[in-house]
Amino acid sequence: MSTQRQLKLGAMVHGVGHGWGEWRHPQARPNASTDFGFYKQQTQLAEGAKFDFVFIADSLHIHEKSSPHYLNRFEPLTILSALAALTSNIGLVATVTVSYTEPYQVARQFASLDHISDGRAGWNVVTSWLSGTADNFGKAEHPPHAVRYRIAQEHVAVVKGLWDSWEDDAFAYNKQTGEFFTPGKLHALEHKGEFFSVKGPLNIARSRQGQPVIFQAGTSEDGRNFAAGNADAIFVSAEGFDEARAYYQDLKKRAQGFGRDARELSILPGIRPIVGRDATEVEDRYQQAVALVSIEDAIVALGRPFNDHDFSQYPLDAPFPELGDLGANSQKGGSDRIKQLARDEGLTLREVALRFSQPRRDFVGTPEQVADAIEHWFENGAADGFIINSLLPDGLQYFTERVVPVLQQRGLFRSEYSGNTLRDNLGLPVPANRYARPVATDAAREAVA
Amino acid sequence: MSTQRQLKLGAMVHGVGHGWGEWRHPQARPNASTDFGFYKQQTQLAEGAKFDFVFIADSLHIHEKSSPHYLNRFEPLTILSALAALTSNIGLVATVTVSYTEPYQVARQFASLDHISDGRAGWNVVTSWLSGTADNFGKAEHPPHAVRYRIAQEHVAVVKGLWDSWEDDAFAYNKQTGEFFTPGKLHALEHKGEFFSVKGPLNIARSRQGQPVIFQAGTSEDGRNFAAGNADAIFVSAEGFDEARAYYQDLKKRAQGFGRDARELSILPGIRPIVGRDATEVEDRYQQAVALVSIEDAIVALGRPFNDHDFSQYPLDAPFPELGDLGANSQKGGSDRIKQLARDEGLTLREVALRFSQPRRDFVGTPEQVADAIEHWFENGAADGFIINSLLPDGLQYFTERVVPVLQQRGLFRSEYSGNTLRDNLGLPVPANRYARPVATDAAREAVA
Ligand SMILES: Cc1cc2nc3c(=O)[nH]c(=O)nc-3n(C[C@H](O)[C@H](O)[C@H](O)COP(=O)(O)O)c2cc1C
Ligand SMILES: Cc1cc2nc3c(=O)[nH]c(=O)nc-3n(C[C@H](O)[C@H](O)[C@H](O)COP(=O)(O)O)c2cc1C
Repeated sequence: MSTQRQLKLGAMVHGVGHGWGEWRHPQARPNASTDFGFYKQQTQLAEGAKFDFVFIADSLHIHEKSSPHYLNRFEPLTILSALAALTSNIGLVATVTVSYTEPYQVARQFASLDHISDGRAGWNVVTSWLSGTADNFGKAEHPPHAVRYRIAQEHVAVVKGLWDSWEDDAFAYNKQTGEFFTPGKLHALEHKGEFFSVKGPLNIARSRQGQPVIFQAGTSEDGRNFAAGNADAIFVSAEGFDEARAYYQDLKKRAQGFGRDARELSILPGIRPIVGRDATEVEDRYQQAVALVSIEDAIVALGRPFNDHDFSQYPLDAPFPELGDLGANSQKGGSDRIKQLARDEGLTLREVALRFSQPRRDFVGTPEQVADAIEHWFENGAADGFIINSLLPDGLQYFTERVVPVLQQRGLFRSEYSGNTLRDNLGLPVPANRYARPVATDAAREAVA
Repeated sequence: MSTQRQLKLGAMVHGVGHGWGEWRHPQARPNASTDFGFYKQQTQLAEGAKFDFVFIADSLHIHEKSSPHYLNRFEPLTILSALAALTSNIGLVATVTVSYTEPYQVARQFASLDHISDGRAGWNVVTSWLSGTADNFGKAEHPPHAVRYRIAQEHVAVVKGLWDSWEDDAFAYNKQTGEFFTPGKLHALEHKGEFFSVKGPLNIARSRQGQPVIFQAGTSEDGRNFAAGNADAIFVSAEGFDEARAYYQDLKKRAQGFGRDARELSILPGIRPIVGRDATEVEDRYQQAVALVSIEDAIVALGRPFNDHDFSQYPLDAPFPELGDLGANSQKGGSDRIKQLARDEGLTLREVALRFSQPRRDFVGTPEQVADAIEHWFENGAADGFIINSLLPDGLQYFTERVVPVLQQRGLFRSEYSGNTLRDNLGLPVPANRYARPVATDAAREAVA
């Protein structure tokens, strides 16, 4: 194993693309979001390039104005289970909300994925920011922002507790005596809290990596504290190097504040690289991506962190509208950031919408240039790695075939997997089971007995 | 395609076996219930033999006395998604409860499995009969038996409604105009009922088979009516030909009572065949199976339909105890049947326990004999097919390699798949989308416009 600090790379796989108009690219398959062949091909590309993981986003509420990529798509745990069967090393990270799920079910499905994949499951914990989600789950109201993070705290604690139900050496498998497991090594959680009451035990044991890895993406004050306290990896969308660096430093400090080793929290900005062989191809591909962003789509996309607010009611070329606390109960961090930017730079609505929908220039260039940008962020306290959120239909292929080899030559990224769990990939230790007695104590106990 | 009525065959895949002591067989892998390689091998055996489907059972509550096959096992939707990636024709039937799940989530995960498998998903609808399940889901009480079936009725109706959210021709995919789907072809369910309130629409379209297939297994009065009204296939455990035939006739009549074509409801007894080359091997294998049933395990197993009642408190060789209405709120049909049998035949507790745990003789024999028994039930109004619930570690292999060819020679079972959805396998039509306008109306509308 290299002693040099290694980049972490994940691939966001998302069918018709994460933007509003990506399905309109001439090469885009407009039905890709439910096309298993497409998910398989993208995941095998990522595994071939030795990526740490693939990542599947999610949401649970659509309406007539929702973007194509929300309207019709695979559910994360099922699609990742299918992909587990066709891969052997790459991590599989599923987005699942805490606001509309039961911890017992979440614990179980992730543990099952973790066994199917032999230790490669990860959970991206989200709280759901669209209030309409409540209507699909018979809830009178969408929980307020602060409550959602309290729910998240308790939900994740319960899930982690359930994951430890079986000690790692619980199974005796003694065919002679009929002892299947050792009494005392199966544990009921007996949790009774503010939001959940879960007895346990869970009906599935731990996998080879102990517990699935926890991912998170929160940028509000509550979101940052939740991530710093609970997550193994954080997914962040950053407006350029300075913002990413400030976020990185802040999150690492918070993690230390929770008594953690800051190295065990990976901070992974989502980036949208555009790669070309030379300046001409770079510009051509960049313009292809720009052409996919219509102002109408950008206006709809802008509404999303504000609970799908309708921005088409405001004049496009007037100053960005005054919104009061709109967004504070939805994507708080993201909506605050948009308001602040509009204020700081005195932008119009059109300018703000395009700023957030058009591809940024940070990771656009030849393979060497993109690798330079990655190295710059990585070496200067802005990232431990990246989640590659490809823009063009062949974006992931260009990145893996062209940029990854450069990163490998520079010694920044692995050329072979050195293990085959997600924790191995991310350099995370296997967490001890909370009920396991230290070996020394066991020996002492035997000495006494 | 053969014009002869065809047998339907499913394989129950269940790791360490469905009985209490099956993991103690010398060849059994005691960790099989979380061994993906084992599930893959069993499923590929079943697909190689052209089975209609594999079936995964489930439950959501364990304790120290639970059987090994409940303690530690894959979750059905995740394991079947993984198996979907490795198969192409066989149906994939997952057991999921209605009492502790949200219809939106259930609809979505099954629809996702249905897309991953390109039309091979089935849902075995269960109501959960162990009251301890409530403690894992923060519920003050386990819903009473009759309420559980009312929940089932509404839950399944909501799920089916959500599955139709997108009309089959909803997606316009017009890259020029930017029209991704045709307005008016996406539908919100707007359901408000006794137990659920679900707005919709669902964020995933229908698959090639229209909707996943509905399986059910209920033997009480409420259970039978629910199955006759809602299920495409029924899984039943029957005590011999006469009971199976009475059940078959009763269910077909009930289905007709609901205005259905009785041929569209398949009745599939679960059987535990033991196959040998000749009489000596048959007897040897039968005795291997008998040896796996200890009286202690049989007593624990007997408790299960009675909400895990502890039968070890009663004398073994005294008459079967008087239990009042114990079991009526658990597996009502199953527990009633046990009480009745004990009363009718004047059995002791030991006799009752062994009767239900020891393998029956109905499907034990040489390949020809087992095929004869299958043909007898099939041709004489007791079954439309069977779910093979193998007893010995190599039980499914013996059945597929030895009995299936005999059934094929007799023209009772397919030698090649004639389609590749679960509905194709079972001979079920693709259900029309509830919102689709008849084509004639569309033409008329256009003529007017
Ligand atoms: C890069 C990134 C990806 C995200 N992916 C999802 C997702 O797939 N599903 C989801 O519900 N929320 C997703 N979120 C939203 C976060 O979970 C969170 O709701 C959001 O960042 C607002 O958090 P805050 O209120 O703490 O600012 C994502 C956020 C970011 C920054
Ligand atoms: C062959 C068979 C298989 C069953 N499999 C399951 C199962 O996997 N999970 C479950 O919760 N119930 C299962 N059940 C139980 C039924 O769903 C139902 O609860 C039970 O038959 C009692 O129904 P009743 O109360 O209508 O008699 C099964 C029942 C039978 C007969």
